[in-house]
Amino acid sequence: MMWVYVNDRFVDEKNAHISVFDHGFLYGDGVYETIRSYGEKIFMRDQHLARLHRSANAIGLSIPKRDWPALLHEAMERNHVGNERVDAYLRITVSRGPGEIGLDPALCPTPTIVVMSKPLQPPPSALYDSGVGLIVAKTRRNLPGALDPQIKATNFLNNIIAKREAIAAGVFDSLLLNWESQVTECTVSNIFFVTAGTLQTPSLDCGILDGITREVVLTLAGELGIPIQEGRYRLNELLRADECFLTNTSMEVMPVRSIDSHPIGQGRPGSLTRQLHQKFVASRMRFVEH
Amino acid sequence: MMWVYVNDRFVDEKNAHISVFDHGFLYGDGVYETIRSYGEKIFMRDQHLARLHRSANAIGLSIPKRDWPALLHEAMERNHVGNERVDAYLRITVSRGPGEIGLDPALCPTPTIVVMSKPLQPPPSALYDSGVGLIVAKTRRNLPGALDPQIKATNFLNNIIAKREAIAAGVFDSLLLNWESQVTECTVSNIFFVTAGTLQTPSLDCGILDGITREVVLTLAGELGIPIQEGRYRLNELLRADECFLTNTSMEVMPVRSIDSHPIGQGRPGSLTRQLHQKFVASRMRFVEH
Repeated sequence: MMWVYVNDRFVDEKNAHISVFDHGFLYGDGVYETIRSYGEKIFMRDQHLARLHRSANAIGLSIPKRDWPALLHEAMERNHVGNERVDAYLRITVSRGPGEIGLDPALCPTPTIVVMSKPLQPPPSALYDSGVGLIVAKTRRNLPGALDPQIKATNFLNNIIAKREAIAAGVFDSLLLNWESQVTECTVSNIFFVTAGTLQTPSLDCGILDGITREVVLTLAGELGIPIQEGRYRLNELLRADECFLTNTSMEVMPVRSIDSHPIGQGRPGSLTRQLHQKFVASRMRFVEH
Repeated sequence: MMWVYVNDRFVDEKNAHISVFDHGFLYGDGVYETIRSYGEKIFMRDQHLARLHRSANAIGLSIPKRDWPALLHEAMERNHVGNERVDAYLRITVSRGPGEIGLDPALCPTPTIVVMSKPLQPPPSALYDSGVGLIVAKTRRNLPGALDPQIKATNFLNNIIAKREAIAAGVFDSLLLNWESQVTECTVSNIFFVTAGTLQTPSLDCGILDGITREVVLTLAGELGIPIQEGRYRLNELLRADECFLTNTSMEVMPVRSIDSHPIGQGRPGSLTRQLHQKFVASRMRFVEH
């Protein structure tokens, strides 16, 4: 049983309800963050909270004041996660709140806040040994001028449709191209690849989430002296790469072995990918709250 | 007080709740229809129900079986709307339902069904006399390859952001262009214009909702012998038009007087617009359920 924070108190998950008039339900009018802990320490806490506020600002949603660090820790403690035995997975959702039917945000005087917390389930370790398979989705990534992927919004059908393609194909995930057929990201992770020793990743203006683990990996690669290039890449450039990997909060650095059944490099995790994951594991406690 | 149908029964709106784990809330993973009655008769009932199922199919959502016509009528009767005194506004929402956090639809075994019903509030009649003002939104319409506007989904932030632009500008609504700068639609209506006696409207492949009132207006225009052209139009072509109007379920045919403060034609409702609205009012009972 999960204790879920809803607006102003923690309730049993069975009683964790919102109104059917919540514009989060009627229109997907909301923003969210998924956050993790290492032990009791929350990873990149302030960066996640800052992005939550940036996402909200982008859709004109004022996030009610809360003592977020205290609230996240209470969510972990009540659910017996975020301790020496188990890392925590946290999800903050803030929606426009309940209101009369209609698009005008002014119909909703009070946003809805939901905080969930549960044991973090990292991907099976076998996946790190073998690498994962991707397909290139038929679904294109959202047009930044329509709904910027940098807004971490509860409008997630674009990603869900792409995820369904991956499930149908029996692979780990889908890679999405943008409106100009450039590489963007997977459904819940950023993508990196390595060509002749240079670490490459789509730039933010390709229409991707400014991933927090992405940013940490770029920092660590810089510390290792690895040449970095953020840019706009065609699929061909990725398919010719020597290595490829994904990053997000729960998977950290996940090797990619193939895309559309085409092996990347030797079709197994690359050496720079391993080096970066080792560096990440060795360094991650520098990036937790203090 | 509204009686709201939630899954299997009608409940008082104060008790109309869904779980915070509903993927409709977490991800905007759902579809909907807004429907109206004229008196007790539901307009284009079967077409709305067919589109609801098409939208659901497009996202791989199986809509649970219900006697939808009976359910819609019960919703009207319980709320004392859809009778000789007041037309009804109905909203069916079907979401993926509650489930563990994650993008895989299989996490949600049972979709959530919500049916709302209330008095239809048509736009003030003064707007039909003056016409309405629009702006061209900075926000572009969703890329069809990312999330097709023909899927009437509860991922509505694209439209909400455009609506906020209109509210900030003090106008009735925003017109959205597509990724190629062609005219698409407004936030909740289709757009038509008249050039030298020809009725023009963006074709479905511009990335628009296949509006049900749009379809009726095209049928009626055909009956009136008005030349019709569906195509891909630049904003300039629209700004040079003689007349312009919007269509949707509740506004029927709404004249547009200006776009970005630029008057359309004479800056007042055009004669063909009036003729089509009169024809619509005279004909609409042909399109209700029998």
